[in-house]
Amino acid sequence: MHTTHSLRVRYAETDQMGVVYHANYLVWFEMGRVELLRSLGFTYREMESDAGCILPVADIHCRYRLPARYDDLLVVETRPLLVRSALVKFAYRLLRSEDSGATTVLAEAESTHIVCDNDLNRCKLPERYLHALQNLLAQ
Amino acid sequence: MHTTHSLRVRYAETDQMGVVYHANYLVWFEMGRVELLRSLGFTYREMESDAGCILPVADIHCRYRLPARYDDLLVVETRPLLVRSALVKFAYRLLRSEDSGATTVLAEAESTHIVCDNDLNRCKLPERYLHALQNLLAQ
Amino acid sequence: MHTTHSLRVRYAETDQMGVVYHANYLVWFEMGRVELLRSLGFTYREMESDAGCILPVADIHCRYRLPARYDDLLVVETRPLLVRSALVKFAYRLLRSEDSGATTVLAEAESTHIVCDNDLNRCKLPERYLHALQNLLAQ
Amino acid sequence: MHTTHSLRVRYAETDQMGVVYHANYLVWFEMGRVELLRSLGFTYREMESDAGCILPVADIHCRYRLPARYDDLLVVETRPLLVRSALVKFAYRLLRSEDSGATTVLAEAESTHIVCDNDLNRCKLPERYLHALQNLLAQ
Repeated sequence: MHTTHSLRVRYAETDQMGVVYHANYLVWFEMGRVELLRSLGFTYREMESDAGCILPVADIHCRYRLPARYDDLLVVETRPLLVRSALVKFAYRLLRSEDSGATTVLAEAESTHIVCDNDLNRCKLPERYLHALQNLLAQ
Repeated sequence: MHTTHSLRVRYAETDQMGVVYHANYLVWFEMGRVELLRSLGFTYREMESDAGCILPVADIHCRYRLPARYDDLLVVETRPLLVRSALVKFAYRLLRSEDSGATTVLAEAESTHIVCDNDLNRCKLPERYLHALQNLLAQ
Repeated sequence: MHTTHSLRVRYAETDQMGVVYHANYLVWFEMGRVELLRSLGFTYREMESDAGCILPVADIHCRYRLPARYDDLLVVETRPLLVRSALVKFAYRLLRSEDSGATTVLAEAESTHIVCDNDLNRCKLPERYLHALQNLLAQ
Repeated sequence: MHTTHSLRVRYAETDQMGVVYHANYLVWFEMGRVELLRSLGFTYREMESDAGCILPVADIHCRYRLPARYDDLLVVETRPLLVRSALVKFAYRLLRSEDSGATTVLAEAESTHIVCDNDLNRCKLPERYLHALQNLLAQ
């Protein structure tokens, strides 16, 4: 039910603590939403340019379990939590694969998005996106 | 009881939605923690370099009410929510001053921090920081 | 002839080398351009929204002399180097004030900007901006 | 002689001009250096942690030809320009593959790096890195 994408931690994403700066996790989760849409046959770019529909973040909550470090190869799992025509929620897990084959959870998060038009006024999610997300959620 | 600092939105902080990219709010809240410590006579830099004590983020929750825009002059209010020797919580409000003199809340957030040494092992917040933060919380 | 603005280095701007990540200097120089325009009575925001005129970067060259560090209080000096209706160049110096009162140059840079409309097609800089920048350059 | 890596443009990397913010190109070039080292059998992470050797940027020059846009799939080509034990230069090209099969150059850049130890004092590049980079340059 979730989609996954992998990423390698960039030097620019670290801070002087020697680990990834916490705000960068939100960027990775957003990449997760984009890849989830792509797995359904859509692109967020087209949703924005053709359907005039954007999904600004209204609420985000992230729990940081273990630090991500420079050059780590990480996986983001993204899945829909709630899908309505005016509001969508997603959940995320950030994972690191260990050499042993085990998987370690580095962070978990949820985000809430208000469906808006390009002028940031509330609108309805076009049917084709709504149905595809609802189908994914129902699996 | 809270400290405030003001900031002007940078072009780099916007995205193609025409508003500030949501992850940047977390950077502004971190500046709020730094300025709160400074208002108590401390610097986070010295806490890190001299006391060997850092405050990585364990949990952050942000509600986005209204978008911040390029060149906006904003104010971040920061206050302690909970102060223990092993764990500190802060609360934030992001505000925009209107020409009318009114103030609009753009976002609210809370963060939880585990007190760690430079190797990211849990430790105790040195007494002088603990007391100063507890005094602020008690006001 | 140059304008100055000061800034305090953010934690988010550091990397695991313990100094500011080099790409962030470009963000600071952009703030310098904005403050230079403001010193002339203009805002870049209005130039973009009202005059439909933007200044994308076509070329940037930066020499890094000494590292900037977290919590440093820095000054950016910005001045026009060349002002034509289709192309503008700026020069920058990044400075740190020492406790001794001396000033240390941390970096120097130049940027070239093509005057464009909101669709990124080349256009002419509106007269009021052109004259104000040329007057500044002539001083 | 050059190494390549591909990347997809993130929403966070755009600005309100609707294109990628120019400072992000420097982050992509840095990823290019890391992947060039990896193609030689090294990791920058190990060079930093084991050999105590870092490559801070002393000079960077970038020409922006055409804008990169959100969700673009781009390729960075990285090659060494000059390899000495105390100083290394790299060159970069940022490319976009068109549907027609053609390739468009979006930007070109060069960077100069001073070989330093972890305290940012000048040092010599360890032999194994020096030889591998010189061999690559000689091809």
